Amino acid sequence: MSNAAPVLAIVGVGLIGGSFAAALRQAGRVGQVLGVGRNAQSLRRAVELGLIDEAVDAETAARRADLVMLATPVGSLGAVLASMRPHLRPGIVLTDGGSTKAEVVEAARAALGDRIACFVPGHPIAGAERTGPEAADATLYRNRTVVLTPLPENPPEAVARVRDAWRACGAEVIDMDADTHDRVLASVSHMPHLLSCVYMAQVASAEDAGRRLGLAGSGFRDFTRIAAGSPEMWRDIFLSNKPALLAELAAVRAVLDQAEQALRDGDGPALLAMLDHAAQARRDWRRDPQ
Amino acid sequence: MSNAAPVLAIVGVGLIGGSFAAALRQAGRVGQVLGVGRNAQSLRRAVELGLIDEAVDAETAARRADLVMLATPVGSLGAVLASMRPHLRPGIVLTDGGSTKAEVVEAARAALGDRIACFVPGHPIAGAERTGPEAADATLYRNRTVVLTPLPENPPEAVARVRDAWRACGAEVIDMDADTHDRVLASVSHMPHLLSCVYMAQVASAEDAGRRLGLAGSGFRDFTRIAAGSPEMWRDIFLSNKPALLAELAAVRAVLDQAEQALRDGDGPALLAMLDHAAQARRDWRRDPQ
Repeated sequence: MSNAAPVLAIVGVGLIGGSFAAALRQAGRVGQVLGVGRNAQSLRRAVELGLIDEAVDAETAARRADLVMLATPVGSLGAVLASMRPHLRPGIVLTDGGSTKAEVVEAARAALGDRIACFVPGHPIAGAERTGPEAADATLYRNRTVVLTPLPENPPEAVARVRDAWRACGAEVIDMDADTHDRVLASVSHMPHLLSCVYMAQVASAEDAGRRLGLAGSGFRDFTRIAAGSPEMWRDIFLSNKPALLAELAAVRAVLDQAEQALRDGDGPALLAMLDHAAQARRDWRRDPQ
Repeated sequence: MSNAAPVLAIVGVGLIGGSFAAALRQAGRVGQVLGVGRNAQSLRRAVELGLIDEAVDAETAARRADLVMLATPVGSLGAVLASMRPHLRPGIVLTDGGSTKAEVVEAARAALGDRIACFVPGHPIAGAERTGPEAADATLYRNRTVVLTPLPENPPEAVARVRDAWRACGAEVIDMDADTHDRVLASVSHMPHLLSCVYMAQVASAEDAGRRLGLAGSGFRDFTRIAAGSPEMWRDIFLSNKPALLAELAAVRAVLDQAEQALRDGDGPALLAMLDHAAQARRDWRRDPQ
């Protein structure tokens, strides 16, 4: 950010927006922090926690902020941007934290029209089990990856401002086009969630669910941890990434079909080849616990 | 165990057998511990570690032991039992630690014939990521569940001897018939492993696997942790529990089909209902981390 004391606005004062504000404040990169939200209690709590200095409406944020983080559900982004559009100050840069990008870009183009150049889409890859202002954490983004999916219209300095802000939060920033982002996230984030939830729902529907859950151990525990996540948030993510998720599901089903056939045939070598491939790939994935 | 200094034999001196021996020794419940195995190095190491006092062959174990824990792969159990049968001392009790029970019971009946009454099938539900004598841990079974699937032929005192031994290891012991055990374990243990491996193999097969794995986060990490497990062990478990696993897979596929259709239709309420059911069931599963 270029000003001596740039003004930050966060739309949505929960985990993603609140942590962004807290990290930038801790890094000494912001002056005033404005908060926008529909829940008056969350806004009050965000002020009490020192995440924001002042609760304002979206129009005011558009007039006063140098940088705006839109940390709202993907489904409400268009409406927020439309209300901000007539009031956007010159030189303002907007970014978001949405989990899918193609639909966000489409909604932003529809809402911002010829002001689209100021919007730099982004997605911090960080856990989202906790919610609300209390969940905000200045260290959330440290050593995490943030994907930016810049638009052709974005001036380099707008992209640089967003990138610098994320780096100040301790994140590594990479660029990708929106479709690639959505395909990759469908694979490594949305698909595990879908499978974990489908499985968990099936176990819970069994007539002897109680006995089953009583014998479930540590493998079950880890495999189903993500199934406890916010149903509303994941419904929105699935719907907003439908084409990519359906395509990935077809690919997963193909491997599942092969494995089932191998099991049905009692084909040990085929089962072993699949299990070996999986075990090797997982062991080679040397990411430290986060 | 009834003797003043009963003799324990463990067939297979790795995690399951070694931990059983270590826990019983720590509890002061065994005199001499004999070890049987095909790997001379593992047997030497088990002696060095104090897990066993002496390496012997299966015939010798059958002649000298009061209690035998068969901690071998399910596939080799029949051969071991057949070699022990002519030498079984009167009053000896055998049990096992195999992950599936119907096939084990079938193999044991074939191998032991009219001596089947001394075999009490069992399954300790405990993690198995580590292997070998070094992995043995006297505390492995503390607060874990052990399922026994007693046979109609088992005299109550044989079942009691196995139950008491497991309790001395700190485990909770429950009884179940073998088919119920296999169905429940297919659901809460084998199915997560199958799905995690199928998914992991699919991701690793993608053209852009490197990019995907580079963006995978903590949800992916937990969901795929079990996929790193021993491919050989899981192949054997899948094959030995084929009917139950195929039946569970059909039930999981039914829920997956519904979820896919809801996604395809953009049916938010149907997706939400499934996700909500899963999240609620997972949150209600109040098992502490192990």
